[in-house]
Amino acid sequence: MTDETQAQTTQAQTTEPQVTAAGNEMSASFLAAKKRSDATLAKLEADPGKFTMLTGDRPTGRLHLGHYFGSIRERVAMQNKGVHSNIIIADYQVITDRDTTEHIQDNVLNLVLDYMAAGIDPKKTMIYAHSAVPAENQLLLPFLSLVTEAELHRNPTVKSEMEASGHALTGLLLTYPVHQACDILFCKANVVPIGKDNLPHIEITRTIARRFNERYAKKHPVFPEPAAILSDAPEIPGLDGRKMSKSYGNSIMLGATAAETAKLIKKSKTDAERTITFDPVNRPEVSALLTTAGLVTGRDPKDIAAEIGSAGAGALKAYVTESVNEFLAPHRERREELAKDMDYIRDVLHDGNKRANEIANATLDEVREAMGMKY
Amino acid sequence: MTDETQAQTTQAQTTEPQVTAAGNEMSASFLAAKKRSDATLAKLEADPGKFTMLTGDRPTGRLHLGHYFGSIRERVAMQNKGVHSNIIIADYQVITDRDTTEHIQDNVLNLVLDYMAAGIDPKKTMIYAHSAVPAENQLLLPFLSLVTEAELHRNPTVKSEMEASGHALTGLLLTYPVHQACDILFCKANVVPIGKDNLPHIEITRTIARRFNERYAKKHPVFPEPAAILSDAPEIPGLDGRKMSKSYGNSIMLGATAAETAKLIKKSKTDAERTITFDPVNRPEVSALLTTAGLVTGRDPKDIAAEIGSAGAGALKAYVTESVNEFLAPHRERREELAKDMDYIRDVLHDGNKRANEIANATLDEVREAMGMKY
Repeated sequence: MTDETQAQTTQAQTTEPQVTAAGNEMSASFLAAKKRSDATLAKLEADPGKFTMLTGDRPTGRLHLGHYFGSIRERVAMQNKGVHSNIIIADYQVITDRDTTEHIQDNVLNLVLDYMAAGIDPKKTMIYAHSAVPAENQLLLPFLSLVTEAELHRNPTVKSEMEASGHALTGLLLTYPVHQACDILFCKANVVPIGKDNLPHIEITRTIARRFNERYAKKHPVFPEPAAILSDAPEIPGLDGRKMSKSYGNSIMLGATAAETAKLIKKSKTDAERTITFDPVNRPEVSALLTTAGLVTGRDPKDIAAEIGSAGAGALKAYVTESVNEFLAPHRERREELAKDMDYIRDVLHDGNKRANEIANATLDEVREAMGMKY
Repeated sequence: MTDETQAQTTQAQTTEPQVTAAGNEMSASFLAAKKRSDATLAKLEADPGKFTMLTGDRPTGRLHLGHYFGSIRERVAMQNKGVHSNIIIADYQVITDRDTTEHIQDNVLNLVLDYMAAGIDPKKTMIYAHSAVPAENQLLLPFLSLVTEAELHRNPTVKSEMEASGHALTGLLLTYPVHQACDILFCKANVVPIGKDNLPHIEITRTIARRFNERYAKKHPVFPEPAAILSDAPEIPGLDGRKMSKSYGNSIMLGATAAETAKLIKKSKTDAERTITFDPVNRPEVSALLTTAGLVTGRDPKDIAAEIGSAGAGALKAYVTESVNEFLAPHRERREELAKDMDYIRDVLHDGNKRANEIANATLDEVREAMGMKY
């Protein structure tokens, strides 16, 4: 769930861009959404078993620390609270804006590895691949009849992704908000953790659910209108102070080795000033290192800066390396252990796919029944 | 296959609008298409077993004489030649431009009845419902990634249907050319009988097949590039000389009784001139009656007109009634017989759905394999 920190390994479905600097664009509609989100969270805390959650990732690369703090950690917490949890590996979303599915199998299996290493329990959380669930995908047809082209165009993610891709708008990217509605509604998810930039996705999903129920299922509504949970998760900068992105080479991968991580941190740029201070605006690189260390240690970056002081960038990097590697050690150990039996990882995915198909077939059956399309 | 004659019970997928007055718009591209179509037909006549055909109807009402002469008759001929034949009942297409699926079950089962009464043999022709085949529908996702929004917009049927519907353009209507590509390609149809207004649908299907093969399946192409067979079938006017359309009340339904047909023809308007002549431009109503009689008797409408001459409209109507009812009698008899066992009709559809699912699952599997999306 929630905000997201890089371009390449973008987070999927429900979780694409991110809440940027705190407080900017605190529009009335955002504040209203935040209020609703807080109310939903309160209900969820009181009775987590009543909630079904859908989140996901686009399998365009490996997960990094930004994903971990931005969403994975929270997914584990939700799962452990007893929320019915579903994670879609949004593989068709890979081709919304690119012409290749290169490395997709590897990326998909590595997502499953990272989920499980991070604490996702496949007995509690259904992990499945979008392309493995035809009945979910079929929902696209009735749902597309419930929205207009103009509504699809109004979606800001469609616009920004198209611009970022440098491609002409594909039919797949244009209809992407409706795929998301299928993802969310096929399993009747009623909560979707997102960054605020994704609020329009939830709005269109709510619209589709409402219109379907009004048009075809007045007496016995088929779909819930899902509520957004707006993430409070911090944005994690890449090691160079820019957005964390695989393509910038500034990302600490969850699955990297301690030595790879040390090397990456060592070659990260700092600045000419010897004394370490936390100043994100004027000293983005140094502050990014401090933020990273702060997150993995749970300490305040300012305290870390004060502690290192005039010991300089070398000392800072040593501290960041040690604390990141210490933080990730258990994850990496579990990951390595799990990777020894990739057949099991595949089984986990196949099992998730199977459950997702059962759910999707049942939902599609209800949809056919409501529409009178059973012959 | 082929041209189509009414607004309400529009023919589906491959067969929407129609070749209007002979010869109009004989553009170079049409002539080229006609040449290719003739070449395809010659190959098909020589070796029908090498060809797989896809046609279909939109279940918005009952079939009438316009459907029969426009496409059903030709489908039966193709089937009997040994062409692998598939008929899709395009039920999702009902909601491209309307808000209701009212009567859809009844319409679907009556289509099957009329097909079989007309000579479609479910052992030779696969009859199935679009909504019953999730794996076919899933093809929409990869296929949508292969076309741009601009290409979807360029489709003239999308434009004309949107204008005719008076609705805002829905996502379903906008993506309709791609649904058709799914319909045609899931069963690897290599011939599609159409009216010339549907040439753009075949073009986009060929484009999608080509792009898929180029992008994901260079060595072992997954999809054929289907060829259009342009229909030579005449357009049949409604009894009032306008387009035959259920909503105009000017259509002779295949499944109506002889008495209903007689009543409909009796109340059809003619004109003040007593002597019957065939003059479609100046005497549309009288000429429509003559055209109808000509089709069902295989005679030249001018000869019929000459024969009736000054006996007038009453005699003409009597002749039309008799010849239409005589022509449709065997169809109606078979239809009535079949309608006694609707469970069997449902079995035919269920069996077609089952076969379509087997084919669609196999094709989707090939698509997943080609895209590297098997995990």
